[in-house]
Amino acid sequence: IKSKLPKVGTTIFTTMSRLAEDHKAINLAQGFPEFDCSPDLQKLVDKYTRLGKNQYAPMAGVLPLREAISEKVFNATATEYHPETEITITSGATEALYVAISTVVHPGDEVIVFEPAYDSYVPAIALNGGVPVFVTLDPQYDKIDWEIVASRISEKTRAIVINTPHNPTGKVWTLEDLQNLTALAAGHDLIVISDEVYEHIIFDGRVHVSASSLPALAERTFVCGSFGKTFHTTGWKVGYCLAPKDLTAEFRKIHQYLVFSVVTPFQFALAEYLNEPEHYLKLSAFYETKRNLFVDAIKDVGLVIKASEGSFFQNVFYGNLSNENDFTLAKRLTIEAGVASIPVSSFYDKVVDYNVLRFCFAKNDDTLLRGAELIHKII
Amino acid sequence: IKSKLPKVGTTIFTTMSRLAEDHKAINLAQGFPEFDCSPDLQKLVDKYTRLGKNQYAPMAGVLPLREAISEKVFNATATEYHPETEITITSGATEALYVAISTVVHPGDEVIVFEPAYDSYVPAIALNGGVPVFVTLDPQYDKIDWEIVASRISEKTRAIVINTPHNPTGKVWTLEDLQNLTALAAGHDLIVISDEVYEHIIFDGRVHVSASSLPALAERTFVCGSFGKTFHTTGWKVGYCLAPKDLTAEFRKIHQYLVFSVVTPFQFALAEYLNEPEHYLKLSAFYETKRNLFVDAIKDVGLVIKASEGSFFQNVFYGNLSNENDFTLAKRLTIEAGVASIPVSSFYDKVVDYNVLRFCFAKNDDTLLRGAELIHKII
Ligand SMILES: CSCCC(=O)C(=O)O
Ligand SMILES: CSCCC(=O)C(=O)O
Repeated sequence: IKSKLPKVGTTIFTTMSRLAEDHKAINLAQGFPEFDCSPDLQKLVDKYTRLGKNQYAPMAGVLPLREAISEKVFNATATEYHPETEITITSGATEALYVAISTVVHPGDEVIVFEPAYDSYVPAIALNGGVPVFVTLDPQYDKIDWEIVASRISEKTRAIVINTPHNPTGKVWTLEDLQNLTALAAGHDLIVISDEVYEHIIFDGRVHVSASSLPALAERTFVCGSFGKTFHTTGWKVGYCLAPKDLTAEFRKIHQYLVFSVVTPFQFALAEYLNEPEHYLKLSAFYETKRNLFVDAIKDVGLVIKASEGSFFQNVFYGNLSNENDFTLAKRLTIEAGVASIPVSSFYDKVVDYNVLRFCFAKNDDTLLRGAELIHKII
Repeated sequence: IKSKLPKVGTTIFTTMSRLAEDHKAINLAQGFPEFDCSPDLQKLVDKYTRLGKNQYAPMAGVLPLREAISEKVFNATATEYHPETEITITSGATEALYVAISTVVHPGDEVIVFEPAYDSYVPAIALNGGVPVFVTLDPQYDKIDWEIVASRISEKTRAIVINTPHNPTGKVWTLEDLQNLTALAAGHDLIVISDEVYEHIIFDGRVHVSASSLPALAERTFVCGSFGKTFHTTGWKVGYCLAPKDLTAEFRKIHQYLVFSVVTPFQFALAEYLNEPEHYLKLSAFYETKRNLFVDAIKDVGLVIKASEGSFFQNVFYGNLSNENDFTLAKRLTIEAGVASIPVSSFYDKVVDYNVLRFCFAKNDDTLLRGAELIHKII
């Protein structure tokens, strides 16, 4: 059969996780926590499974979860989303992103993508017959040049994908960035798809500026979020999409034929768990300590490190010590030193080597310290 | 924004379930069991949640579940699927069907669809730029005319979607049907997408003939299955796709960007539960009793009923008693009599009224008896 995605292989996350397994390496590659979710949350799953919440959830998600999200979002930002018509529960943020992209991208449409980019955006655009147009940033970038972004927009541009806090750079967009985006999107009538899965992991006193918090932006945006990163439950696959009523109506038309609905007992469990804001508000402090531990442990060999501003990823620039390409180094680090990372060039369309590796610090402290030691063996 | 699915509204299942709720009607509309899954299975979920199986599953699914499926499928049919390369765990059969269709359908391709058809096939084809070409069957049909099917095939035909046991007719395809399909598909080099979610619900001594059981068919087929109907867990959203290695490779490229992976603890729980074949082999007898109960309870008013051969749906022809259209009658039955059903014309592309309603008999015996009584109030 003729491939729909001829250029695509297995994702870099799967590839590196397998390599890590084969070589019994510490896996600082794929982004998932080494620690378990709260036993309280596990008990809630058991509660709702026993209560018989085992049949189809409503297509848009169970109402208590949509209500809990509405209140949470309302507290954090300026825009309130209506649970009935503007919030949809999805099979992880991945499905939310895929459906949002499918909803807006018609064949031939162009979509602005900032790279480095999470690996699902471009295939999702391509599968819908769209054309990604890249704004290429150095993985250590400081500021976005909005004139360059504007220069990428053509008659065919339909949408723009953003991600803050950003994977893999750990960059957090400022209010000014979001204001610039608003002007641009409104000026060219673009739909925005905003990946905010790391919204609750943000450091050094920064605040997450959600696309949902600027009304003129929110009215043209699909905000995609997830509970996987927030509650250490990446394997539960519960995410959500917030969007104005008219966008949500079109989103749901597609969602209902893609997966129809999402795991029922987890939805009820998460709804109850969300009632206690402490469950997610303490997360930033938790991860900030881990970031500090990891950065301190690896920087003394002369690696150049800009501390991650958010997410659970730390980029490490090694170009001043070696110019081995990042794929080769990532493999060698896994096989020879026993610690797996992600070569950041895999987040770019064309392989340009920035000599940067991405490490996930959602790991136990001793794993991070041991990982840092092993990194020193090679770099 | 320009709609991707301009003709689509909310699914008939959601519509009728809501109407049932609003009028406190017995819901014999949407296909889900009224009874709960086994407490043993619930305990297994708790076990694996506590064991910390809460992070991303491998993209293709956890190996124990793929192995359990391989053995189960192997026992039932002639073809063995390799767990590593030919079995993928999906977010329900709905995702399996969507991804299989996305894998083969390029813009402009035609796909043969038998109608009445489950409501996700056509939007999935349309979202991929394909064109459905219908083979229209009476909901009470006896035999498929394979010459008519052949006449629908053109240069552009790429795939054919089948479903056995069939929703909504309850029809079970024979070995001869599958042989005819094999000849046709091989002769025109078509890919087959086979929806077999009711494989374990089959009556009166019939056997399920899976597309996977004919090697010449299996080599060009995506078999889509689900645990939701088999274990009374429609809300868990765990399904699977069986296909030869080369088809599976392309399938996974898309699956990995649609949902990436599927709920981990349920996968482990189902893998362990599948070790005991009794858990699914007794299902046909269980539902056959229910079908008999329901058919006996409603037929005495003169309704024409061909007993369902498989699935948990019973079609009822009322055209000899009334020629009210099926939408109007279904609504009236829900609002005035308090029992919800699905008008079978909603499974057709063009509204042609066959005077047939679909009732789901995956309900407790007293619900079915009470439902039958209520039906008699109106028909
Ligand atoms: C879906 S696997 C990848 C997890 C992740 O978000 C990452 O590693 O970037
Ligand atoms: C996904 S909701 C519909 C359930 C079902 O299979 C049916 O009622 O036909």
